Amino acid sequence: MRIVVDAMGSDDNPEPDVAGAVMAAREFGETIILVGDQAQIEAELAKHDTAGLSLEIVAASQAVTMRDKPSEVIKSKPNSSIHVGLRLVKDRKANAFVSAGNTGAVLAVAMLRQVGLGRIPGVKRPGMGVIFPIKERPFLIDNGANADCKPEYLLQFGLMGSLYMECMLDIAKPRVGLISNGEEEGKGTTLIKEAGPLLAASGLNYIGNIEPKEFLNGAVHVAVTDGFSGNLLMKTAEAIARYMSETIREEIQANPVTAVGGLLAKPAFGRVRRQLDPHEVGGAPLLGVNGVVIIGHGRSNAFAVKQAVGQARLAVEKNIVKAIAAGIKQ
Amino acid sequence: MRIVVDAMGSDDNPEPDVAGAVMAAREFGETIILVGDQAQIEAELAKHDTAGLSLEIVAASQAVTMRDKPSEVIKSKPNSSIHVGLRLVKDRKANAFVSAGNTGAVLAVAMLRQVGLGRIPGVKRPGMGVIFPIKERPFLIDNGANADCKPEYLLQFGLMGSLYMECMLDIAKPRVGLISNGEEEGKGTTLIKEAGPLLAASGLNYIGNIEPKEFLNGAVHVAVTDGFSGNLLMKTAEAIARYMSETIREEIQANPVTAVGGLLAKPAFGRVRRQLDPHEVGGAPLLGVNGVVIIGHGRSNAFAVKQAVGQARLAVEKNIVKAIAAGIKQ
Repeated sequence: MRIVVDAMGSDDNPEPDVAGAVMAAREFGETIILVGDQAQIEAELAKHDTAGLSLEIVAASQAVTMRDKPSEVIKSKPNSSIHVGLRLVKDRKANAFVSAGNTGAVLAVAMLRQVGLGRIPGVKRPGMGVIFPIKERPFLIDNGANADCKPEYLLQFGLMGSLYMECMLDIAKPRVGLISNGEEEGKGTTLIKEAGPLLAASGLNYIGNIEPKEFLNGAVHVAVTDGFSGNLLMKTAEAIARYMSETIREEIQANPVTAVGGLLAKPAFGRVRRQLDPHEVGGAPLLGVNGVVIIGHGRSNAFAVKQAVGQARLAVEKNIVKAIAAGIKQ
Repeated sequence: MRIVVDAMGSDDNPEPDVAGAVMAAREFGETIILVGDQAQIEAELAKHDTAGLSLEIVAASQAVTMRDKPSEVIKSKPNSSIHVGLRLVKDRKANAFVSAGNTGAVLAVAMLRQVGLGRIPGVKRPGMGVIFPIKERPFLIDNGANADCKPEYLLQFGLMGSLYMECMLDIAKPRVGLISNGEEEGKGTTLIKEAGPLLAASGLNYIGNIEPKEFLNGAVHVAVTDGFSGNLLMKTAEAIARYMSETIREEIQANPVTAVGGLLAKPAFGRVRRQLDPHEVGGAPLLGVNGVVIIGHGRSNAFAVKQAVGQARLAVEKNIVKAIAAGIKQ
């Protein structure tokens, strides 16, 4: 298997991206193709022991920054590592593309049929999904690819999310819920009220509207939402988790007795922090494009990049693209 | 001052509602009018020492449950405690209405001109706001009253929220932000992209788009959002805070050393829990209706009901209704 890693992806690129690629090549024994500035990649690779690993470099003369506007990147940076990397997959020279770079740009380029992968026939809008880093590991889709949605998009997000959980994690008939502002039918925006009946009639294992607490307590395997709400849910969860950690630390240190207690309890806090660490899970699959694309967090470290490659590898192995194509066709 | 408390409001009504009313009458020295089932209210009042307190009962023969549909309540329960209580304010027999009951029903009845209070002239949609129970105490509006919004509603939410923070907390020129899925201008749904320029041109101290982390770190005093997103943000925050508390407790108890640490650190956890307790803040003001209405959480205890009455009292004292009427007129 040949997996492309965008060397110019993460906020601190190319260091974590290259280090993660090396880790992945070693752990999975697959060929990793690093795409980006050749000199920089070589300099990073020189820091690692790569003996016996299958690592290749494909040069890309441009790099997309987090500040670049996706709509402009398409035209202004035709030789970016995102373009070059996705083209390798399109031309069947690689099986999957992994990037911790500008999400919007990866999305925009991947969507284009001529340049990127295009959509799987029948897919209205690719959706970005993410496995939430909590105990129950629910899948949230769409997680930010499509701010404005139509009911049919949400139906397809449910379908693609369900197939992903079935394919990747061997969950039979994943439970699917629709994020709303109340569990009762008829709650929600017009979008939600129209998407509910479509999901109910879809043949999916649809349980109806759910609220954030049901998303966290394992009521569903797949939570369907528009990209704006999905992004809001994820970012609120991250922000509150950080806020609570900081507040607990401050309160513990405010008093010598609680400070000693905090010191003794430290390993427990570490375990909680790791549990909520998005790096543990890897990246967000872009479902509905005609190829395997995994988008990592901009703050990805080497471990996170390696995990994203592992996720891409499994998606190729399980042939998620074929499964979605078959599911959408029905 | 005369403040109405819906005795049939909270999930455990009338016990916390009546107990909170007694606490409020004692603490604030104002007249509290309990509306609801006369016999039940009398039975609850008998449990308290009410000597010297100004407490009145106004009978209402119907009660709205949390399961009642707001649209149906308007017609099917014309003598509910919500109807009767709001009519007292409308008829100037009371200054404010406090309920921990069915939010949608309070909203629906309050909105009606003939039965409830109607809107302040010029207000397109009343917005429900809430002071978030974190250190910086930001105000989130709309918090669930309007799932589907138009850009002009968001503009007015910003205006009303700003006036609320100015009036109630003496904050000069409150900083106002618009919740979106990115700080950059042009991020968000069509609704957000259209509301941004309206807020920017409004004369408010508008700082642009914010993400949940900016909402938590004190970047704004007022965060503007549609009711669906506001509700999602609030419920995600509550759910994640609960999830983290439980996970930390489990992890601490999983090992004897960390368990001792947890015991020593317990007071610190208590302080964090109180900090995130919505009961500390009180209720959600319904801004834009022609009168003071405070809606409490269904899970309100007596203390929360008392706090909501305190909030209503301050809103009457500061004449928030007049301030909004003047602000909207401009």
